[in-house]
Amino acid sequence: MDAEQTAIALGPHEPGTGDDGSAQFAQWLAHTQASVRGHVDEFVRARCTAELDPAGFSLPAQLMIDFVSGGKCIRSVFGYLGWLCGGVGESEPALRAAASAELLHAFALVQDDVMDESQVRRGRQAAHRRLAAWHTDQGLSGSSARFGESAAILVADLYLVWAERMLRESGVTAAALDRAWPRYDSMRSELAVGQLADLSNDANRVPTLGAVMDIARRKSGNYTVRRPLELGAAMAGCDETVMRLLGEYGEVIGEAFQLRDDLLGIFGDPTTTGKPTGDDVRERKATTVIALADQLAGPSDRARLRDLWRGQVIDEQGVALAQAVITDSGARQRAEQMIGDRVEHARWVLDVADLEPSVTDTLHRMALLCTRRTH
Amino acid sequence: MDAEQTAIALGPHEPGTGDDGSAQFAQWLAHTQASVRGHVDEFVRARCTAELDPAGFSLPAQLMIDFVSGGKCIRSVFGYLGWLCGGVGESEPALRAAASAELLHAFALVQDDVMDESQVRRGRQAAHRRLAAWHTDQGLSGSSARFGESAAILVADLYLVWAERMLRESGVTAAALDRAWPRYDSMRSELAVGQLADLSNDANRVPTLGAVMDIARRKSGNYTVRRPLELGAAMAGCDETVMRLLGEYGEVIGEAFQLRDDLLGIFGDPTTTGKPTGDDVRERKATTVIALADQLAGPSDRARLRDLWRGQVIDEQGVALAQAVITDSGARQRAEQMIGDRVEHARWVLDVADLEPSVTDTLHRMALLCTRRTH
Repeated sequence: MDAEQTAIALGPHEPGTGDDGSAQFAQWLAHTQASVRGHVDEFVRARCTAELDPAGFSLPAQLMIDFVSGGKCIRSVFGYLGWLCGGVGESEPALRAAASAELLHAFALVQDDVMDESQVRRGRQAAHRRLAAWHTDQGLSGSSARFGESAAILVADLYLVWAERMLRESGVTAAALDRAWPRYDSMRSELAVGQLADLSNDANRVPTLGAVMDIARRKSGNYTVRRPLELGAAMAGCDETVMRLLGEYGEVIGEAFQLRDDLLGIFGDPTTTGKPTGDDVRERKATTVIALADQLAGPSDRARLRDLWRGQVIDEQGVALAQAVITDSGARQRAEQMIGDRVEHARWVLDVADLEPSVTDTLHRMALLCTRRTH
Repeated sequence: MDAEQTAIALGPHEPGTGDDGSAQFAQWLAHTQASVRGHVDEFVRARCTAELDPAGFSLPAQLMIDFVSGGKCIRSVFGYLGWLCGGVGESEPALRAAASAELLHAFALVQDDVMDESQVRRGRQAAHRRLAAWHTDQGLSGSSARFGESAAILVADLYLVWAERMLRESGVTAAALDRAWPRYDSMRSELAVGQLADLSNDANRVPTLGAVMDIARRKSGNYTVRRPLELGAAMAGCDETVMRLLGEYGEVIGEAFQLRDDLLGIFGDPTTTGKPTGDDVRERKATTVIALADQLAGPSDRARLRDLWRGQVIDEQGVALAQAVITDSGARQRAEQMIGDRVEHARWVLDVADLEPSVTDTLHRMALLCTRRTH
């Protein structure tokens, strides 16, 4: 990762310079991300060579290598930070174990994109679209779109199986792995059940904040921050108190992460998010920010928002209307405030946890990075 | 499993009576199948209670319990037989480990049914159709068919994750599990890659026998007989020679199993298969029997078969035409002969392997059961 990318990853509020330790953090983060990417790349290439290339699937193999190269590695970084909370020092096997989270995340993204019929991911065509194009290029009969979706589901299966294999073969001790597995299994089930809950939401009704926060917690918050952190900490043998405090930090920062994600899904800049602005409105996603607007808007604005949601298609004008209601109702500001509250709560939890100062500092900076990001 | 079901499972050539040991085999098999079902039922119910019910997904939970109750448990039986080849005696943990194959199989079936748009499975509506009906019943907005497919993919994910958890928590020793994992991972990847190969076959062209046998080996043969057998044997610590011979037995019986499956897919009786007769023709499946007919038929019959495949829809008349070409070309008889050759080859391998006589006898009877079955 070069300096420019690091600066982007840190967002405008964390310039990555100055003498308050932020330069050191930026350097640590860039180094950790680069190591994660290196381990993931090495593992995926080896599996592709062993399993996909001999069967003549070089394009799906290349797709699988490309896809994992573009992530921000947040889950892996939290996993490794969980490990560092144990006070047992730096460890390449633990970093490799943490890096396996990128493969689990790739599984979830590729599969979700099929279900949500998303066209773009990480600034390029979604996996199912690339696979559909491959089907067309090869001149195969039948529906290319249908093939693309099925092939993407199979690519996701491979990521899911490989993720676990990478964790198992990471080199951490058997005892560490034994502590990890029950949590790992729960996390994976939670992910599937969370997605099922998301799909079961009535798309034409503006969701309640409670319902949305619950799904957000299970589907993304937990598995972005809390579960990776707990997994790493469990592997390092952290005691019950530390586990409980990290769970609390993870829960609130996971929620704040999701709140930021939801704000970006509505107001984000396409040049940094890699997605069209207002995409979540166009796709009628049940997000926290929409639920907040529904709760806070006056009667006429609320009616306009609900009408928009019940309609057939949400066009540019509809997106603009939703954005205006969200801003005018104070929902945008409230979401920002909820993020701020959670970052503060996390800071308080860290103060209580009594971890190594450098780990505490890094966890706090990661909380800021996750919640102030622009993509 | 009651006596009538046992008789059906054994097929017309194995009445399950007489003094040649077949009654004893039938009893052993029924007992093993019942134990497998018991373990699977217990495990799935516990997971549903922990993971699905609290989130309000009682119907998907019930579906997951129902689905695994209807299988023939062939994979689990082979897995347990592999264990018994090690000469380390009966073991409830090993049986539980073997039974986890039912969950992996459920994963593959539920997912394949979505991709193949199959309507019926094990004599009832396919999982995605039941989930679509649930969506409609709940009055949710959006496409019920699309929801059913996405929800079925998530149910399949849960089966995949639970399968491995059941194996890990089966109670076999850590050393036995360590021997199992690399094979287990390969098997799961092979399954996904085999399905990808199947999807990549040009649906409108009659396939070559070589290509079809290759897919059949990877997609179904290996994971029905060979891999479960090897997994069980690896867990029991069998030596290299036994592993190699079991691999050979598993490969040929897996192929014969698939050949029988392909014959049933074209000529099977709907009352025993639970599927309409000629279903594989209607769905234009690239099967060994079709490839054989293409190879053996005279020029005019071959042309008729290829035309049929290239057409838009294959109706009842088309199914009858394909059946006639397959029979008249001698493909049906050749497939029967290929099955017979493979059973004989397997018998020869068993003679060389020098296992416990009761295990040898059971493996031979399983070979007959898999290749003479009517469903």
